[in-house]
Amino acid sequence: MEFRLSDEQEAFAQAARDFAIGELEPHAARWDAESIFPREAFARAGELGFCAIYAPENIGGLGLPRLDATLVFEEMAAYDPSTAAFLTIHNMATWMIGSWASESVRDAWGPQLAAGEKLASYCLTEPGAGSDAASLSTRAEQKGAAYVLNGAKAFISGAGDTDLLVVMARTGEPGAKGISAFAVPANTPGITYGRKEDKMGWNSQSTRPITFDNVEVPAENLLGREGEGFKFAMKGLDGGRINIATCSVGAAQGAYDAARRYMGERKQFGHALADFQALQFKLVDMLTHIVASRQMVRLAASKLDQQDPHASSYCAMAKRLATDLCFQACLDAQQIHGGYGYLKDYPLERLVRDTRVHQILEGTNEIMRVIVARQLLEKGADIR
Amino acid sequence: MEFRLSDEQEAFAQAARDFAIGELEPHAARWDAESIFPREAFARAGELGFCAIYAPENIGGLGLPRLDATLVFEEMAAYDPSTAAFLTIHNMATWMIGSWASESVRDAWGPQLAAGEKLASYCLTEPGAGSDAASLSTRAEQKGAAYVLNGAKAFISGAGDTDLLVVMARTGEPGAKGISAFAVPANTPGITYGRKEDKMGWNSQSTRPITFDNVEVPAENLLGREGEGFKFAMKGLDGGRINIATCSVGAAQGAYDAARRYMGERKQFGHALADFQALQFKLVDMLTHIVASRQMVRLAASKLDQQDPHASSYCAMAKRLATDLCFQACLDAQQIHGGYGYLKDYPLERLVRDTRVHQILEGTNEIMRVIVARQLLEKGADIR
Amino acid sequence: MEFRLSDEQEAFAQAARDFAIGELEPHAARWDAESIFPREAFARAGELGFCAIYAPENIGGLGLPRLDATLVFEEMAAYDPSTAAFLTIHNMATWMIGSWASESVRDAWGPQLAAGEKLASYCLTEPGAGSDAASLSTRAEQKGAAYVLNGAKAFISGAGDTDLLVVMARTGEPGAKGISAFAVPANTPGITYGRKEDKMGWNSQSTRPITFDNVEVPAENLLGREGEGFKFAMKGLDGGRINIATCSVGAAQGAYDAARRYMGERKQFGHALADFQALQFKLVDMLTHIVASRQMVRLAASKLDQQDPHASSYCAMAKRLATDLCFQACLDAQQIHGGYGYLKDYPLERLVRDTRVHQILEGTNEIMRVIVARQLLEKGADIR
Amino acid sequence: MEFRLSDEQEAFAQAARDFAIGELEPHAARWDAESIFPREAFARAGELGFCAIYAPENIGGLGLPRLDATLVFEEMAAYDPSTAAFLTIHNMATWMIGSWASESVRDAWGPQLAAGEKLASYCLTEPGAGSDAASLSTRAEQKGAAYVLNGAKAFISGAGDTDLLVVMARTGEPGAKGISAFAVPANTPGITYGRKEDKMGWNSQSTRPITFDNVEVPAENLLGREGEGFKFAMKGLDGGRINIATCSVGAAQGAYDAARRYMGERKQFGHALADFQALQFKLVDMLTHIVASRQMVRLAASKLDQQDPHASSYCAMAKRLATDLCFQACLDAQQIHGGYGYLKDYPLERLVRDTRVHQILEGTNEIMRVIVARQLLEKGADIR
Repeated sequence: MEFRLSDEQEAFAQAARDFAIGELEPHAARWDAESIFPREAFARAGELGFCAIYAPENIGGLGLPRLDATLVFEEMAAYDPSTAAFLTIHNMATWMIGSWASESVRDAWGPQLAAGEKLASYCLTEPGAGSDAASLSTRAEQKGAAYVLNGAKAFISGAGDTDLLVVMARTGEPGAKGISAFAVPANTPGITYGRKEDKMGWNSQSTRPITFDNVEVPAENLLGREGEGFKFAMKGLDGGRINIATCSVGAAQGAYDAARRYMGERKQFGHALADFQALQFKLVDMLTHIVASRQMVRLAASKLDQQDPHASSYCAMAKRLATDLCFQACLDAQQIHGGYGYLKDYPLERLVRDTRVHQILEGTNEIMRVIVARQLLEKGADIR
Repeated sequence: MEFRLSDEQEAFAQAARDFAIGELEPHAARWDAESIFPREAFARAGELGFCAIYAPENIGGLGLPRLDATLVFEEMAAYDPSTAAFLTIHNMATWMIGSWASESVRDAWGPQLAAGEKLASYCLTEPGAGSDAASLSTRAEQKGAAYVLNGAKAFISGAGDTDLLVVMARTGEPGAKGISAFAVPANTPGITYGRKEDKMGWNSQSTRPITFDNVEVPAENLLGREGEGFKFAMKGLDGGRINIATCSVGAAQGAYDAARRYMGERKQFGHALADFQALQFKLVDMLTHIVASRQMVRLAASKLDQQDPHASSYCAMAKRLATDLCFQACLDAQQIHGGYGYLKDYPLERLVRDTRVHQILEGTNEIMRVIVARQLLEKGADIR
Repeated sequence: MEFRLSDEQEAFAQAARDFAIGELEPHAARWDAESIFPREAFARAGELGFCAIYAPENIGGLGLPRLDATLVFEEMAAYDPSTAAFLTIHNMATWMIGSWASESVRDAWGPQLAAGEKLASYCLTEPGAGSDAASLSTRAEQKGAAYVLNGAKAFISGAGDTDLLVVMARTGEPGAKGISAFAVPANTPGITYGRKEDKMGWNSQSTRPITFDNVEVPAENLLGREGEGFKFAMKGLDGGRINIATCSVGAAQGAYDAARRYMGERKQFGHALADFQALQFKLVDMLTHIVASRQMVRLAASKLDQQDPHASSYCAMAKRLATDLCFQACLDAQQIHGGYGYLKDYPLERLVRDTRVHQILEGTNEIMRVIVARQLLEKGADIR
Repeated sequence: MEFRLSDEQEAFAQAARDFAIGELEPHAARWDAESIFPREAFARAGELGFCAIYAPENIGGLGLPRLDATLVFEEMAAYDPSTAAFLTIHNMATWMIGSWASESVRDAWGPQLAAGEKLASYCLTEPGAGSDAASLSTRAEQKGAAYVLNGAKAFISGAGDTDLLVVMARTGEPGAKGISAFAVPANTPGITYGRKEDKMGWNSQSTRPITFDNVEVPAENLLGREGEGFKFAMKGLDGGRINIATCSVGAAQGAYDAARRYMGERKQFGHALADFQALQFKLVDMLTHIVASRQMVRLAASKLDQQDPHASSYCAMAKRLATDLCFQACLDAQQIHGGYGYLKDYPLERLVRDTRVHQILEGTNEIMRVIVARQLLEKGADIR
């Protein structure tokens, strides 16, 4: 066992921290307030390799383990969880293109996605389906050398602002096995983007529903083979859950850092807040929970990297634990700031709003428990 | 002991519910989104007596117990905690004018405040002081038949939109005993209103800092006598804490009602959400905590009405418990709504944002514990 | 609404407190350590009316409301939750005899039970059934003027030390409607008592399994009519849940009182524990949760007294909340005592062990949620 | 980073598991019920090296890292936390003798302690001092070639049954720097053992107070140099906290395993408990918290092994988190067992009683927070 990061990993994290301080921190509040999707920031992230951290090298990805990716995302999320989270989604979609697209699609899109010049959205969720992804009803029917897509997606991050859609659609039987994945250029005729959702947070990501009305894509835009879509989606979700969990860890670390500083500065009743034992204890518990969450996320990432048979359960547990504990840590940091924590002049309330959705998406934290319970009780998995 | 409301109380609550459904629910989301301070709604509330529920009858108040006031505020907060909360502040200020203003001031302002034609703000908090109200530094110096006010206030609800300010200022020695209360017309020369605060929630209430620069008010605008201000403020805070706690109860009830409905409608994995035991348990715990919070609030209100020597401790406990449990209930209701709970199309995320500040203001929930601890450990109070 | 106790109620509670200090406190530790069932204490409780608080007056009961009964049980449980809890069971059985026994059985047993000269056990739970009471399989078959009982019961409080058993047995169809209740003298031939259970706590109550092997009782020993047993049992359980919840409230109050005293006396790092803010906050939270629990219990008792249609849900919510929060309060009081809290020289660890089972019995706290959820979601009950 | 155990570590853990199943599980309930201190079991543990896992090789210790020691203790604690915990104390004392005793004392005692033939107690806590170890008042005065000890210790594990005492006593100034450590044979004249404490759990460890009345030990029995005692004690406590935390992890894993099995077997309402979603979620949360606790403990052990400057904070955080979460997991496992969980026929209630004290000793969990807070806020340590 070895808990220390290597020097390379430390340097990689440092590069991400520098990027976050230079490119995210100064703008995050404005992007949130004005709902700006910061394309340029993603392009600059791409220059540093952050748009394709674990995507394969054949498209210009860094081909790094998931664990290394968490280091980057965590640093960014300390300043801007919403932007960091979109970057994780783009990384996931890019990895899928790099891994399973046909050669022509891979060559056409992969390098530009890896560079952050083009951006991708991931289209799994449907209005009626929610967490029950396997029941999705968007259809893709093969007609000659093309597939024709019909249906609707909901809650699509980046939709309307991105260039490529990775779409899960049904090509066959009901259930998980009838689902296939497609790379669909975002401006393909027949695609309509709905009203931009007005959300509690995650405002630097545009979220829109999408309608597919006889959208025709070449057959080569199929990822992998027919019926493999759900498998890809689930693999993607394992990583996606780690990524979201990492964003919660980062945000909580940012909130904790702010609270620790503030406790040293702010005086009440003639004492610095740092002198009040109950606040000290709150701060320590925040840190303890952040450290525990980070370890769980790294453990899960490492299981995924090692293709551990129980990786999905570790990812689900990490997502559940980290997004719950770290949301609470953000609330606690806000509380320590008193009335100022409720103002948009401080980042605390934004961190709270942004991390709130991490408990809901990529499968709610309730679904996380369903996933693990099935392994433990139906499959009898001995996980520890 | 009797836990049932009287028929009059039931009718009063029903009137508040009707008002809330008719006048608040249709507009609450827009007032929040566009930061609109709904003067007309307050005027209509005034027609029903809701602007002066426990203010004395000599200004047109209903002169009802605190407990009855909670019934009204709770119903309103189920649809719009922010607007309901401002109404509680206005009620508090109106009660102060009705109770302690000189005859001339009382006659000049009382009836219009009670009718909701004029609105009042309560000016206690200062930028440096926060929860440590007794250390406030705004000064009021008597010069002939006038007092001259200098200093600054922060986080003042309604500031810039209201007509009268109830201001706590120092007329004497440091500490609590040197503080006096004044009724200050909002447009008195020398008053400057700062930038409207951009907040996480409570957006139907404008919040601004105020600067007093040689603001002159007639001596008759002193409430009660010199040095009584802190006593008034603390009395006000006891009631204020009950009111805020009630708004949390109401909001949580609204959130719970929405979640219960949604669980019956929304299907996942072929079942209504209502069929999933873990969600059932979450719903039951929400209700249990709402009921317990409501009882605590009513108990505290009743202690205040009876001038129980430990009323302050009961108010502090009720505020701590209700604002914590009911915020969590709002979060849980949001969670049950999944992704939809994160959208502004549904009221859940607004209820979460609005109730978040209840844990912070009128004394943070940490200060609530300090208040009770002092009674228990220094004064040896036997509270049960 | 009126939260104050009447003078009579205060006096009644005081009598119970005096009894508890005189008759329970001096012995509770020994009864626990040596597993002594204190028959004499029950007899003395009977002299004060505490063995038949809500039983009807025709057997010498006090015929008081449930709410008044909670006052007595709470005071006793502050010193000895185990003994208080058995007394609640005896009260329940006595009330059943007083309410539904035939005249001859009522006259033969009622007065002695009410006086505490005879003691009764309540026999519902079976080894295989646990919380699923309606599935019980003990059978009672009518043969001439007698019923013959066969089957087994488990976890019976007082079994082997009591004089009368109130037994639920199946006389008809499967399910709830086939169940009847019987008064069975404890020494009836065919009754075998199993090994005394070795438990974590509740040691002043003997707990044993019982086997019924062709146990013959006269037909007049049927309570009410055939098929009414489950209805009686459920009515009994509503009250039983309030009683158990009350015992948790009392125990927590006792633990809190001890912790508050100890904080004033014990010094660490040159300060009384009472000076440490984190412990102050813990103490305040304990008190807050005890007060909230007490209110919930009284609310539920009052609903039961008023035969509110949702009384069962209130009882279930009160039992869940009070037994959870008050167990935690006992743990916190133990924690404040540090190492001494772990020793049997102090009452804390006993209060923890005794209250632990309150979360489990009379229906586990999970079952409490099932009960309420059914009302909310299947029956659409609007409970608040 | 590498989260996997090496093959050697896996084998070592397996050996401990085999030992625990063979030598502890069959007897643990009886040792608890009859308060038996199992000397023979410790001797057999010694044969496997488990009495000196991280003690230096010059006394026959295995000289392994702390992290490896946690593997052993965790496995044992799954079956018997009390016995495992004493073994950790003995390991700590043995490590101290091996590390800092003079050559003669080391040779006289070290090998026998390492072999488990002799057992050692650790004597730090005093009746008045509790968590405030630096204020201890037991004195050791040098008189010629001897030290003479006077004073009293409290809560000493194994006292009266062990052969050697490692005693912290004051040789100089008040405060931490005046404290020295001594190896004191348990049968030295002047040592009196008090009444065996009657405890909630940890019953396979005798706990007694000790009085030192002019107890004379040769000067060579000083460990290290005068004034180094508190430094040794604090080093010992860092490890001790990891050890106790590990015992909580092990116990919780044992409780979880039992609960998972039980859920598959026990039927209620016609379904296995495993079918009830709320119980599934409870089980998953237990596992999640156990995994998180284990990672925190291993992280802290690894920091200690690497002599990280913040090792003490990591140990304190791990102890706080693991003992809290794992105690709760034991409670949850007990709850899942329903009434059976309250009986001594099942191990659950023993696991609850045994792990309860882990939140209290080796510094209460409140002290853990004080330790970390000081680093964060006074020293400005940047721990993550």
